[in-house]
Amino acid sequence: MLPMHNDFLSIEHIGIAVENIETAITKYSLLFGCEPYRREIVESEGVETVFFQLGTHKVELLASLNIQSPIQKFLNKRGSGIHHIAYAVADIKETMQRLQKQGFRLLNEAPKKGAENKWVCFIHPKDAEGVLTEICQNIN
Amino acid sequence: MLPMHNDFLSIEHIGIAVENIETAITKYSLLFGCEPYRREIVESEGVETVFFQLGTHKVELLASLNIQSPIQKFLNKRGSGIHHIAYAVADIKETMQRLQKQGFRLLNEAPKKGAENKWVCFIHPKDAEGVLTEICQNIN
Repeated sequence: MLPMHNDFLSIEHIGIAVENIETAITKYSLLFGCEPYRREIVESEGVETVFFQLGTHKVELLASLNIQSPIQKFLNKRGSGIHHIAYAVADIKETMQRLQKQGFRLLNEAPKKGAENKWVCFIHPKDAEGVLTEICQNIN
Repeated sequence: MLPMHNDFLSIEHIGIAVENIETAITKYSLLFGCEPYRREIVESEGVETVFFQLGTHKVELLASLNIQSPIQKFLNKRGSGIHHIAYAVADIKETMQRLQKQGFRLLNEAPKKGAENKWVCFIHPKDAEGVLTEICQNIN
């Protein structure tokens, strides 16, 4: 029997890397039948982000602002596509400690600031069946 | 100004293709800190599916049952990773008609039966920034 934690509360958003942010906004506005509610530059990651809301769920489009950004590296390798899944957790530091103890490799040792005023931490895709996995918590 | 529809209600689930279902269940049970609530074979797709619930959100692990299944083709090409995003819609036939009129290519012309007693339809990844996109509706 596994120890149960229930610290993963929900899917906070899904991140989709896109080559051209304007084309992608038009396409996803058409697909979802609604317009994005937010557009934000995250300097630390070298990305521009655009958020759509579907009920309580969010989809984030990510475009690269420079050739060093991780999104540009992803796009060079694979082209547009799903980049990551982000899960909301109750206490990011606690969950980071739990995951490290269980052998998950974290890509940042301390929480860092992400879009929408959140603390974020990434888990190595090799430890999550090839999925770049983010955990996040609102900054109070 | 785009016509607003709001027929995309929520993210119904995210589908992750996995090489080995038992290893993946162990890994994701550890990651999420909870066990899956459902395990189901979908003969028509040649897949075994396992569902986890996080609040109102769901993550589906998909493993191939035979070499002809679309999941096996995906795994051969890319290995384990995010396979699709599924959105709940209010009326799948209406949304399919709307999307076709707007130039989205649908991968099935009529809704087909998917996991968890749902009608499903897939949209061509090229029309959604490289993302295989599913829409689904509960079968009444």
